[in-house]
Amino acid sequence: MYGRYTQDLGTFAKDEAARLRLQEGDTPRPRRPSELLEYTQGRCAPCRVCALQCQRFLISKVGEDWVFLILLGLVMALVSWAMDFAIATCLQAQKWMYGGLDTNVLLQYMAWVTYPTVLITFSAGFTQILAPQAVGSGIPEMKTILRGVVLKEYLTLKTFVAKVIGLTCALGSGMPLGKEGPFVHIASMCAALLSRFLSLFGGFYENEARNIEMLAAACAVGVGCCFAAPIGGVLFSIEVTSTFFAVRNYWRGFFAATFSAFIFRVLAVWNKDEETITALFKTRFRLDFPFDLQELPAFAVIGIASGFGGALFVYLNRKIVQFMRRQKTINRFLMKKRLLFPALVTLIISTLTFPPGFGQFMAGQLTQKDTLVTLFDNQTWAKQGINDEFEYLGILEAWRHPRSNVFVTLVVFILMKFWMSALATTIPVPCGAFMPVFVIGAAFGRLVGESMAAWFPDGIHTDSNIYRIVPGGYAVVGAAALSGAVTHTVSTAVIVFELTGQISHILPVMIAVILANAVAQSLQPSLYDSIIRIKKLPYLPELGWGHHEKYNVRVEDIMVRDIHYVTLNCKYRDLQQVLHSTKMKNLPLVESAESMILLGSIERTQVGALLSSQLSPHRRLLALRQKVLTEDGHRLSDSSIRFQISTETSSGTPARPALRKPLKPALKRVPSSPADSPPAGSTDHTGIALKSLFCANTAAEPTEAQGTAYHKAKRVRISIVEEMILGDKMTPAEILEWEEQQLDQLVDFSSAKIDPAPFQLVEHTSLHKTHTIFSLLGLDHAFVTSIGRLVGMVSLKELRKAIEGSLTGKGVKVRPPLASFRDSTASTTEADTTALRQLWDRHQHHHMPREAGPGGDDDDDTPK
Amino acid sequence: MYGRYTQDLGTFAKDEAARLRLQEGDTPRPRRPSELLEYTQGRCAPCRVCALQCQRFLISKVGEDWVFLILLGLVMALVSWAMDFAIATCLQAQKWMYGGLDTNVLLQYMAWVTYPTVLITFSAGFTQILAPQAVGSGIPEMKTILRGVVLKEYLTLKTFVAKVIGLTCALGSGMPLGKEGPFVHIASMCAALLSRFLSLFGGFYENEARNIEMLAAACAVGVGCCFAAPIGGVLFSIEVTSTFFAVRNYWRGFFAATFSAFIFRVLAVWNKDEETITALFKTRFRLDFPFDLQELPAFAVIGIASGFGGALFVYLNRKIVQFMRRQKTINRFLMKKRLLFPALVTLIISTLTFPPGFGQFMAGQLTQKDTLVTLFDNQTWAKQGINDEFEYLGILEAWRHPRSNVFVTLVVFILMKFWMSALATTIPVPCGAFMPVFVIGAAFGRLVGESMAAWFPDGIHTDSNIYRIVPGGYAVVGAAALSGAVTHTVSTAVIVFELTGQISHILPVMIAVILANAVAQSLQPSLYDSIIRIKKLPYLPELGWGHHEKYNVRVEDIMVRDIHYVTLNCKYRDLQQVLHSTKMKNLPLVESAESMILLGSIERTQVGALLSSQLSPHRRLLALRQKVLTEDGHRLSDSSIRFQISTETSSGTPARPALRKPLKPALKRVPSSPADSPPAGSTDHTGIALKSLFCANTAAEPTEAQGTAYHKAKRVRISIVEEMILGDKMTPAEILEWEEQQLDQLVDFSSAKIDPAPFQLVEHTSLHKTHTIFSLLGLDHAFVTSIGRLVGMVSLKELRKAIEGSLTGKGVKVRPPLASFRDSTASTTEADTTALRQLWDRHQHHHMPREAGPGGDDDDDTPK
Repeated sequence: MYGRYTQDLGTFAKDEAARLRLQEGDTPRPRRPSELLEYTQGRCAPCRVCALQCQRFLISKVGEDWVFLILLGLVMALVSWAMDFAIATCLQAQKWMYGGLDTNVLLQYMAWVTYPTVLITFSAGFTQILAPQAVGSGIPEMKTILRGVVLKEYLTLKTFVAKVIGLTCALGSGMPLGKEGPFVHIASMCAALLSRFLSLFGGFYENEARNIEMLAAACAVGVGCCFAAPIGGVLFSIEVTSTFFAVRNYWRGFFAATFSAFIFRVLAVWNKDEETITALFKTRFRLDFPFDLQELPAFAVIGIASGFGGALFVYLNRKIVQFMRRQKTINRFLMKKRLLFPALVTLIISTLTFPPGFGQFMAGQLTQKDTLVTLFDNQTWAKQGINDEFEYLGILEAWRHPRSNVFVTLVVFILMKFWMSALATTIPVPCGAFMPVFVIGAAFGRLVGESMAAWFPDGIHTDSNIYRIVPGGYAVVGAAALSGAVTHTVSTAVIVFELTGQISHILPVMIAVILANAVAQSLQPSLYDSIIRIKKLPYLPELGWGHHEKYNVRVEDIMVRDIHYVTLNCKYRDLQQVLHSTKMKNLPLVESAESMILLGSIERTQVGALLSSQLSPHRRLLALRQKVLTEDGHRLSDSSIRFQISTETSSGTPARPALRKPLKPALKRVPSSPADSPPAGSTDHTGIALKSLFCANTAAEPTEAQGTAYHKAKRVRISIVEEMILGDKMTPAEILEWEEQQLDQLVDFSSAKIDPAPFQLVEHTSLHKTHTIFSLLGLDHAFVTSIGRLVGMVSLKELRKAIEGSLTGKGVKVRPPLASFRDSTASTTEADTTALRQLWDRHQHHHMPREAGPGGDDDDDTPK
Repeated sequence: MYGRYTQDLGTFAKDEAARLRLQEGDTPRPRRPSELLEYTQGRCAPCRVCALQCQRFLISKVGEDWVFLILLGLVMALVSWAMDFAIATCLQAQKWMYGGLDTNVLLQYMAWVTYPTVLITFSAGFTQILAPQAVGSGIPEMKTILRGVVLKEYLTLKTFVAKVIGLTCALGSGMPLGKEGPFVHIASMCAALLSRFLSLFGGFYENEARNIEMLAAACAVGVGCCFAAPIGGVLFSIEVTSTFFAVRNYWRGFFAATFSAFIFRVLAVWNKDEETITALFKTRFRLDFPFDLQELPAFAVIGIASGFGGALFVYLNRKIVQFMRRQKTINRFLMKKRLLFPALVTLIISTLTFPPGFGQFMAGQLTQKDTLVTLFDNQTWAKQGINDEFEYLGILEAWRHPRSNVFVTLVVFILMKFWMSALATTIPVPCGAFMPVFVIGAAFGRLVGESMAAWFPDGIHTDSNIYRIVPGGYAVVGAAALSGAVTHTVSTAVIVFELTGQISHILPVMIAVILANAVAQSLQPSLYDSIIRIKKLPYLPELGWGHHEKYNVRVEDIMVRDIHYVTLNCKYRDLQQVLHSTKMKNLPLVESAESMILLGSIERTQVGALLSSQLSPHRRLLALRQKVLTEDGHRLSDSSIRFQISTETSSGTPARPALRKPLKPALKRVPSSPADSPPAGSTDHTGIALKSLFCANTAAEPTEAQGTAYHKAKRVRISIVEEMILGDKMTPAEILEWEEQQLDQLVDFSSAKIDPAPFQLVEHTSLHKTHTIFSLLGLDHAFVTSIGRLVGMVSLKELRKAIEGSLTGKGVKVRPPLASFRDSTASTTEADTTALRQLWDRHQHHHMPREAGPGGDDDDDTPK
């Protein structure tokens, strides 16, 4: 045993060394020398070795993607299942209350109306207080975040809690709201929190690019575990959140979404809700003859009508929001009583769905889930238009009305739900619009299907076999088409296959979805883009398909030519001027105003910092101190400064806050104690010799006191503070004069952070390519250069204008102002050549002043 | 009527003007003034107006994407259907021959073997003669083309014909070959040809970026109409051809693939093959309980085993190809008799599948399609392991053998087909490997399923209901898993759903496919990447998932630091030196060797052209002529040159070829006629005054004879030719001397084509981001700059090495040589600062020589 132990230790040491060598490349961790010493001591050393090895192994595995994805999938499946459970409980409670009070209609009504109103109001209030970012769908925000824009507070724990609880309450109220969009947001927050949690075990999760990729996978998980539709989830999340996607991320999405959907459904099996894993809304259409070829026109009609319907929904939704905002009286009133609007909307909607009231004409007692189940039902409700022939069973009862037929019920349902959904999704609670739209689409499909069934009672097929029309299939097609139209996606087709567990209607669904998309895309932006516009998030519109003129617009047509720049040899005054004259966030840094060679870009804040540090009070005071020194002829001794430090730090506050905190009081003390200011005006000429002496002294200091670096730093800081107090004795006029002097100095860029390779485009880059590059790399500006020379700049704003200009101006296409110059391709290359020639000439003059003559053509070069 | 006519004309003119104004932006077409004149004349003018309007409308519509996509879908559906028909006929003919000769086994064998051998040999010979590019799958080539690399002759009509006919014959032979990959290629060729055809109607199809997008859509159409699987087709084509995908193209793919699949299936209905549109390999598994939760481990086993199998298949396929190439004797023999190898392979494979022979143990008589149909069958073949219980029906008969059981048949089938498919796909005919692998996977799945059914005769579920195990479901899972493993895709899952028309097994399929991918991806590249490597196509390996060390490697670790460059003020000698010392295709152009500011990049060929034009004989002769003029003291009169022109041009050859053709003979004549060379050595000092006089003269000429520009150009050209003949009187020594002089001149870049904005990276860009950018933008090199200064270069080669280095070196990770320097982040920013400081200092010195002192720190700046 002891022998083995030694051997173990030997191999362990070898392994350890190898591992350390390997890990060196990945994560430079601080090594603990105590670990290795430990093994030779103690009694249960082998156990400890083993435990340590396991721990290390686990920690190293935590960094791998698949562990993260499995954890994400697991957490999201649990969250999804728990939320579903809570929502189902809420809905059941409402039903129970409503059912228990069936003796009194008024009490029933009160219960029916109060319950959702309370829930929605609570949801609105809770999210408002905890995290207003949790309001709404979340897909538009995720789209923006995945573009590389950082939205504050969108991926925090607070928002997570607010979204989960708010969404549960909102959906538990039975309002026509969806959970898909919020789930995308919840999954993203989950991923962000998880990666922050896992980064406690190692530094793997600190990479920005990786986190973005994980967020993309998380979006897929969100949709996937919401509908138990992994494939549809991945595709839908790609379509709604990305302009470009990497096939890499696609794997991650599939993996996580499948795992998540699997766990989500397994939980249902374990909970004995289901016998095995099946689809959420399983249909049982016949397999051998799902539809006739001659039914396809009907499916196409559903598609086209859904396209118009979808566009109308988006329009209606936007108009409601805009109306609320524009009507100032309403707006002011609602801003004061934030919870009134949700309560009011809920009150109206629940009143209209009250089953004994108007609800009886629109199957008001059914929950969203029950509605879908009934709409996807296998049976035909209206055989030859007569209700009585068909006996409604159980849940289907809701669609029957003694004094009207099923068509009327369906039409009323569609019309009422349409505006209700559009209105309900504007309530400031966490909610999506996918599911309500899906239900409306299903109802519309069912209506068409029932009409077809009534029209052709024995099916269309004229051969020997009679295949009746399946209205449930129409409902599936309608659901996919309308939700596809509203969201501008085709993956809703895949989602319905996964939701229903049947793929037999693939061609009708695909045809309807594509037609719906074609119609809707030409009329309105998608619901998410519409919200992005309403919320004014930094976005880039898509290039529609078929706009081939986009290939003809070039960067030179849209770029800003008159840009402000910083030159390498500029003065602080120039910086000030640039800051005053432009609002650009990134300023180009060029070699000189003549050459205009782009060297990099510098952030506006950096420029500001440069300027403020140049004009900072402590530099001024330093200068003042030097002047004082020069005049007095003797300088302050080091010890006196040290003394002052000790008195300053004796108050117990650490040095760093001490630097910041006393600044304001110190400055404020200036007018209160003007008595002890030194004589002004006489301090103009600084003695350079003495100053250099002083400098030499401070420069020599580090070599003699290397060990006490911290103390020294503290000392220097404090001395600055001290000098500040010492030196606010300049009059405003003096300060102004000093500042003017400072502004005339050349800028020292060495302390500034410069982006050494900002993205560059050429004048001839097409709008199409520019859009591609901007959306691929998530840029918000790019400089346009020509052979190294800065000639212009394109930012998101210009790009957006250019795209929208040619998108909206369909009839009257705006000819880009400079496009005509380019029709003759020769001229552009000539311009290029000229630019190069200029540069060349300049260099000729520059480097060889002996050859002052003009460049000349190739033909008459003199052989030397 | 006449009044209406006038009115029509008025509105027409207005419309016309509007349209012309609009079209101006799109395509500057030559306007035909005769068109407008026509309307006022003639008798049936209104008809003509109408016809013209219609024509214009149609032509303008032809440019729209959807028209193109519909046409593409239609054509591909027709091609696919026609090919399927031809293949089915071929296979039936073989069956008929085999069946008709059942009296004599030897004759049967001859027929069974000869038929495929002839077909394969014809296919190989036909493609070899017509277009060798048609050989093989086509997906690797399409992947390369979509990356932006131009492969010659890959998208021509010749290749299209060769591929279609070759593929039909190859598949008609009954060999284990697939049609999926070739269909991707065929669809792409179709798109390329179609766009070339449609460009006859307008200039819409001349855009490069658009054509690439259309090719991406065409790939989706190829898969989509091959399997009637639009969604799976789109996803599969994305996975195998792209690294990054634009959601824009995704629409196109869906649209075209759906239309194509629809037409493809409608053709089957119209041909009375089917009653309505259903899946290709329709399954009829039970819907209510597709699988038990406890069966999932079996599905996972299928997935993992398929992963290993897929990797083995790729390995085997590559080894066969490499063996053929390496064995020199075999190789030489095969190169001589190109058709022998296909014939031999076919002979072996068809002998082994001969049904009365060994084929009886492996269902040899079934075609690929029949095999799949039987494998996906709903029934259980081996109830409790005893064959007799189950009566085999019709086509299923093939799997039964009187002296063995179904397990043996399946195992033999899998083993034999495995190496046969790997071998057959190396035959130089148009063929893919997807379908054979799919069939093998299905057989493996069936084997596992039958084993499970034999193990649990009454199903696993222990509740009241008995749900028997469905081995067909296992076959579906196996097919998806193995084909997914070989191609490294997850979309095979979607393809099987669409192929079988059932989605009930979604979770087992997804789990198996993901596991198979995880295993296969860690062992081998995908089949297509393997072929890319074998064929040495310009490719960029994928970044695997989970390799987070990629985020830690940076451009500075992999870039080439010692690069050759061209400076703006360099001499021709430098150009020559650069051309000799490097093989880079693109040379960076920097401002000067000191500043190293990157101005652009210049192609190697351009540099060569600059150099050769500088040293060209006609420049030399021009120089000589000037010398002659100087010596003689009088110059040739203009009129004499003109005379010589007329004699030169009278021979009838145009001026331009005359310039090129005589060059070589002229050079060769040099040694033959050394007698008439002018005295050498005396021409050393060129008279500058006279030369400048001459120059002034030629410079003045253009102003006085602007009208006859063409004649003048011709004259100049001819005069050069004339001078060439006149001047080959220099001795080689003289020529050398002259050339040396020329090389010392400064380069004039004005005639060279310079890329003004080559792609730039920074030293800190991560390998991950670099890979992303390279694959997104299809780059093959990028320059690394630091604040405008060129510091290095990264090309595909370096990137590939870096990725493969860290991919293959899994155990022993190669630490990038410079990575250690970067661990302290401070040092890099310091380096940056230093670089900037240098630049700044240089400028300080440069622009302000009066301030020669060192820059100094911020603290001790002297206020001026």
